[in-house]
Amino acid sequence: MAVVEIQQILLQLFVIIAFAMAAAVICKLIKVPTVIGEVLVGIIIGNTGMFAALQLGGDAQVFEAFKQLGVIFLLFAVGLMTPYSELRKVGRTAFMVASLGVVFPFIGGYLFMTVLGYSLIPALFVGAAMVATSVGITARVIGDMGLGDAIESRILIGAAVIDDVLGMLVLAVVVGIAGGSGTDIAQTAIVAIEGVVFVIAVIIIGGMVIPRVRKIRERKVDVERPLQTSPPLISPLPLALVLCFGLSFIAASFGLAAIIGSFLAGMAFAEVQDRWPCKEKFEPINEFLVPFFFIFVGIQVQFASFNDILLIGLGLTAIAILTKIIGGGLGSRSLGSRSAMVIGVGMAPRGEVGLIVATIGLGMGVVTATIYSVVVFVSLATTIAAPAMLTYAFKARFKKKEKHIERDDEDGNLKFRDR
Amino acid sequence: MAVVEIQQILLQLFVIIAFAMAAAVICKLIKVPTVIGEVLVGIIIGNTGMFAALQLGGDAQVFEAFKQLGVIFLLFAVGLMTPYSELRKVGRTAFMVASLGVVFPFIGGYLFMTVLGYSLIPALFVGAAMVATSVGITARVIGDMGLGDAIESRILIGAAVIDDVLGMLVLAVVVGIAGGSGTDIAQTAIVAIEGVVFVIAVIIIGGMVIPRVRKIRERKVDVERPLQTSPPLISPLPLALVLCFGLSFIAASFGLAAIIGSFLAGMAFAEVQDRWPCKEKFEPINEFLVPFFFIFVGIQVQFASFNDILLIGLGLTAIAILTKIIGGGLGSRSLGSRSAMVIGVGMAPRGEVGLIVATIGLGMGVVTATIYSVVVFVSLATTIAAPAMLTYAFKARFKKKEKHIERDDEDGNLKFRDR
Repeated sequence: MAVVEIQQILLQLFVIIAFAMAAAVICKLIKVPTVIGEVLVGIIIGNTGMFAALQLGGDAQVFEAFKQLGVIFLLFAVGLMTPYSELRKVGRTAFMVASLGVVFPFIGGYLFMTVLGYSLIPALFVGAAMVATSVGITARVIGDMGLGDAIESRILIGAAVIDDVLGMLVLAVVVGIAGGSGTDIAQTAIVAIEGVVFVIAVIIIGGMVIPRVRKIRERKVDVERPLQTSPPLISPLPLALVLCFGLSFIAASFGLAAIIGSFLAGMAFAEVQDRWPCKEKFEPINEFLVPFFFIFVGIQVQFASFNDILLIGLGLTAIAILTKIIGGGLGSRSLGSRSAMVIGVGMAPRGEVGLIVATIGLGMGVVTATIYSVVVFVSLATTIAAPAMLTYAFKARFKKKEKHIERDDEDGNLKFRDR
Repeated sequence: MAVVEIQQILLQLFVIIAFAMAAAVICKLIKVPTVIGEVLVGIIIGNTGMFAALQLGGDAQVFEAFKQLGVIFLLFAVGLMTPYSELRKVGRTAFMVASLGVVFPFIGGYLFMTVLGYSLIPALFVGAAMVATSVGITARVIGDMGLGDAIESRILIGAAVIDDVLGMLVLAVVVGIAGGSGTDIAQTAIVAIEGVVFVIAVIIIGGMVIPRVRKIRERKVDVERPLQTSPPLISPLPLALVLCFGLSFIAASFGLAAIIGSFLAGMAFAEVQDRWPCKEKFEPINEFLVPFFFIFVGIQVQFASFNDILLIGLGLTAIAILTKIIGGGLGSRSLGSRSAMVIGVGMAPRGEVGLIVATIGLGMGVVTATIYSVVVFVSLATTIAAPAMLTYAFKARFKKKEKHIERDDEDGNLKFRDR
C-alpha cells in the first residue's frame, strides 16, 4: 500500500519538476519571468490527459500540501526582506494603497454584476472576491527581477498584507449579509476584528520581544567568548520553521490566510537574520517547493467550462485590473505616475486568494456555479496577465528614473525617500 | 475543506519540528547523535495522546510523503559522497561484507524460529526480514561524526546497496516459496534479476554517459568563453531532483526500495558536482525533511503490544546484531578487527527495510500478527541500538589507529588502502 503510494508520488514529482525545469529553460532563453512558464505548465497538465494519468485528483493531498507550503515559504522569504523598521517607513503609503485598492475593486465588481442584472448577494460576493490581492505572483516577479529593495516592491508587499486583512474583513461582512442572521454578523465581525488584532499584536509583540532576545545573546557572547561569535545551540532553520509554521497555524486558526502568519514570521526573523542566518537555507527549499504553487494555479484553469462565461469573464477581468490600477495608483500617486502604475499593476493578481473566496461562496451556496467559474476565471486571468504587465511597468519605471537613481545612491541600491 | 487540512498539517509540522529542535539541543548538550533524540521524540509522540491529537493516523499521507522523501533525499546525499570510481575501489570488500551479512542473519533468523517450534514458512520469512540493512541510521551517524571519507563508511554504504539488492532477492525467493505455485517462483526470480540488472545497468550507463556530458560542456566553455565558466542554463537543483525522482520511481517500479534509485542518482551526480553543484542545496532540504523519517521510525514503536513478545523479540534482536557482526566482520576482516567491528555494527540496523518486509509478510497472510510484531520490534531495537554501538565502535577504531593515520596521510583525511 505505502509502496504503491510513494511510487505514484515519485512519478508525480518527476514529471512536474521535469516540466518546470523545461519551462524555466525556455523562459530564460526568451527572457520572461519563470512564473509564467510554470503557470503555463500547470495549464498544460490540467487540460490534457496528464492530470488524470498522474492521478493528481485522487492523490492530491501531498501535492496540495507542497503547493500550500510553497506559498507559505515564499511569503516567509518575502517577510525576510521586510524588517519591521522598513514597514514603518512605507506604512502610510502602503495603507493608502491597500485601502483604495479594496474600495475601488469592490465597487467596480458590485456595479458590473448589478448592471448585468444579478441580484444583491451575488453582486456583493463578486465585489468581495475582487478585493483580494495575491502577493505570490508579484513577489516572484520582484524576485526574478532582483527588485526586492525597490520602494514599490516594499509598498506592494506591505499593502498586500494589509489588503489581505481588509479583504478578509470585507469577505466576513459580505458573508454575514449573505448568511442573513444577526448572530452571523456579530460572529463575522469578531473574526474580522481578530484578524486585525492578530497582525497588530504580532508586530507589536515581535517588536518588543526580538530586541530583548538579541540583547541576551549578545551579552552572553560578549562575556564568555569576547572575540569570536559562537555558533548558536539552536540551528537557524528549525527555529525559523517553528516560528513560520506556528504563526501560519495561528493565522489559519483565526480564519485568516496562513500566508499572513508566515509573512509575519519572516518579518520577525529578518530582525535576527545576522544571528540565525536562514535566508540561504530557505532558498533551495523554495526552489523545490514554490513551483508547485504556480503549477497548481495553472492546473485549476479548465478551458472546457469557460466557453459560456468567456465574455463576462473578460469584462470582469478588465474591471478587476483597472480598479486596482486606479485604487493602488491613487494611493501611491505621491511617488510619481510610473511608480503608481507599478503598484497598481502589482496589486492586480487575485491568484489563490480569489480562488479561496470563490470556493467559500460556492460552499455556502451563495453564488451559482457560473459566477464561481467567472470569479475563478478572473483570478487566473489577472494572475496570468500580471507578471507581463508588472515586468513592463517596472521596466518603464526604471527606464525613466535610472539616471536619477544612480545619482541618488552611491551603493547602487534602488533607494527612494517616501516624500 | 482545504483550509482545515492545511491548518492540521501546519499544526503537525509545528509540533514535530519543535520537538525535533528540542531533541537536537539536548543531544548536542549531552553529545549523542541527533538521530537518537529524533527516534525518541517519535516514540514519545507515538505512545502518548499526541499521535491521536495531531491526527497523524488519519491525515498521515503528507507526513508519510515527508518521511519517504526524507530518506530518499538522505540516500541521494549519501550517493553524492560516493562517486563511481570510489565504489570500484571498495567493491570487492563491500560485496563480501554484503554477501556474508546476508547469509549469516538469514540462517540465524531461520534457526532461531525453528528451534522455537515455528513452521518452515514463518521461519524463512523471519530469516528474510533479518537480511535487510537500513543504511539511513548508519549514514546519519557517519554524517554526525564527519566520517563520510573513512574507508569503513564507504564499504558500509556500498555493502548496504548490494545488501538491499540481495535482500530483495532473498525476500522474492521466500515470498515465492510462501506463495507456493511454480509461476510465482519464476516471476519472483524475474523481479530479483530485474533488480540486479537495474543497479548494474545504471552504474554502467552512468559511467559511460556522464564523462560524455562533461566533455560536451567543457568543450563548449572552452570555445565560447575560454576564460570564464558560464553558469549552466539548467539549474543544478531541478536537474538533481529530476534524476533523483526518476531513478527512485524506476527502482520502485522494479519492486526495489526507492532509496536504491536515489542513491544511484546521487552517485551519478557526484561525478558532475563541479559543474552542477547541488550538495549545498540539498543540505537545508534534508535538514527540513530527514528528521521526519527518524521520528516516524520512533512513532511505529507501540509499547503496549510488545508485552507478550518481549522475550522472543530481545532474543531475535541479539541474533540479528550478532549475525551481522559475524557476517560483516568476516567479510571485512582484512581491514583489522576494529574496522571489522565498525562494519558489522554498521550493518545491524534493519530500520525501514525490516518494517517494509514485515508489512509485506503480514499483507500476504504468510506471518501472524505476533511474528509481525516481533519483526517490527527487532527492526526498531537494532535501529535504536545501532547509533550508540556504531559511535562506540568508531571511537574504538580511531583511538587505536589515530597515530597511524596521521603518519599515513598529510592531508589529514582518513584514507586507507584496501590491502
